[in-house]
Amino acid sequence: MSELHVREWQDRLRRFAEHRDWEQFHTPKNLVMALSVEVAELVEIFQWLTPEQSTEVMGTKRAQDVRDEVADSLTYLLRLADMLNVDLDAAMADKFQRAADRYPVDEVRGSAEKR
Amino acid sequence: MSELHVREWQDRLRRFAEHRDWEQFHTPKNLVMALSVEVAELVEIFQWLTPEQSTEVMGTKRAQDVRDEVADSLTYLLRLADMLNVDLDAAMADKFQRAADRYPVDEVRGSAEKR
Amino acid sequence: MSELHVREWQDRLRRFAEHRDWEQFHTPKNLVMALSVEVAELVEIFQWLTPEQSTEVMGTKRAQDVRDEVADSLTYLLRLADMLNVDLDAAMADKFQRAADRYPVDEVRGSAEKR
Amino acid sequence: MSELHVREWQDRLRRFAEHRDWEQFHTPKNLVMALSVEVAELVEIFQWLTPEQSTEVMGTKRAQDVRDEVADSLTYLLRLADMLNVDLDAAMADKFQRAADRYPVDEVRGSAEKR
Repeated sequence: MSELHVREWQDRLRRFAEHRDWEQFHTPKNLVMALSVEVAELVEIFQWLTPEQSTEVMGTKRAQDVRDEVADSLTYLLRLADMLNVDLDAAMADKFQRAADRYPVDEVRGSAEKR
Repeated sequence: MSELHVREWQDRLRRFAEHRDWEQFHTPKNLVMALSVEVAELVEIFQWLTPEQSTEVMGTKRAQDVRDEVADSLTYLLRLADMLNVDLDAAMADKFQRAADRYPVDEVRGSAEKR
Repeated sequence: MSELHVREWQDRLRRFAEHRDWEQFHTPKNLVMALSVEVAELVEIFQWLTPEQSTEVMGTKRAQDVRDEVADSLTYLLRLADMLNVDLDAAMADKFQRAADRYPVDEVRGSAEKR
Repeated sequence: MSELHVREWQDRLRRFAEHRDWEQFHTPKNLVMALSVEVAELVEIFQWLTPEQSTEVMGTKRAQDVRDEVADSLTYLLRLADMLNVDLDAAMADKFQRAADRYPVDEVRGSAEKR
């Protein structure tokens, strides 16, 4: 697998929008809407599948659709983070640390209960 | 800004789930649901804002919420891609090329019309 | 405008599913996913519109799409409520009363702040 | 179960918004966002449940949450339909007829395949 260079993708996506004069549409409000629509297209692929079928999806004719919708979702998430100047690595590290504190291994093993 | 190392994050998130015996819950079907819920928490922040207010959100008290929900959304998207063995860079490159072909600069400048 | 008879629609939709042996797919988990997908198709219509354009949508070529996606969303919401035996009128009355208590007219006029 | 009078609820919800001067926020664009957020709160209840657990949810401590989120989703869907002057009964009848034509009982029994 090739490595995903996030910053380079954000630059490429920004230029793609600039060249088409689409920045006027790319307000954060609109980008979160577009992100939610792409994620729903992922949900649609899985909506009638059993959990077991969902784990086998990449061996079916929907595999390419899954890859496409994952890419579309990531595209809008990176665009949004770029427009809002969110430091993705720092934001991930911050949330990860809080999740580790809130869900200690010894206390939550095997439980999906929210805390 | 720090660089986001996607593979390392996927490894870290996978171990986090393994240690808590949460892999049983992380079917692709459940992960897309969780992803859609986190994205909706982003949508909630923007739902009553004007487009102009949405561009100023990082200067308000909701800035940390935005960073948190972006991180949560990215977390589930990376988990999902990991479980499904999606090559994110290849999937992005593939979609990007098709988008460039479908939306030539000369023909679509300034238009949000879908093709 | 014709009156919507909710119970009759729920009966009609239930029989539609029964006749096609689709009840096996209509678990609450799957129905909420389908509902979220239909709502996202509504979101898609509005994602790049300005607030002003969104108020004019019924005078555009997207009007029929809006009616269709509203109907699809309502269909799955009624199916879900039927499968879960939710008394819609009682649930609405209960939430409405709590909203009236939480948002007194004198205190919240003109503010979209959540409480 | 009590009957849900849709028009009366739409009148009541409209007055609720008017009294609080919230109509300025209730553009169709914002209302579809709010609807998608409420539906996601329903999705959250079901995200880690097995299909079997999802059918038992009304016998658990989440039952009231389900009723609340169904009511919230219906509230925004009725508000949206009211603002857009969508005749819900006609829209349902129209979609229902087309679904009956597209999915003949003899051809689709037991299949969740989209057409």
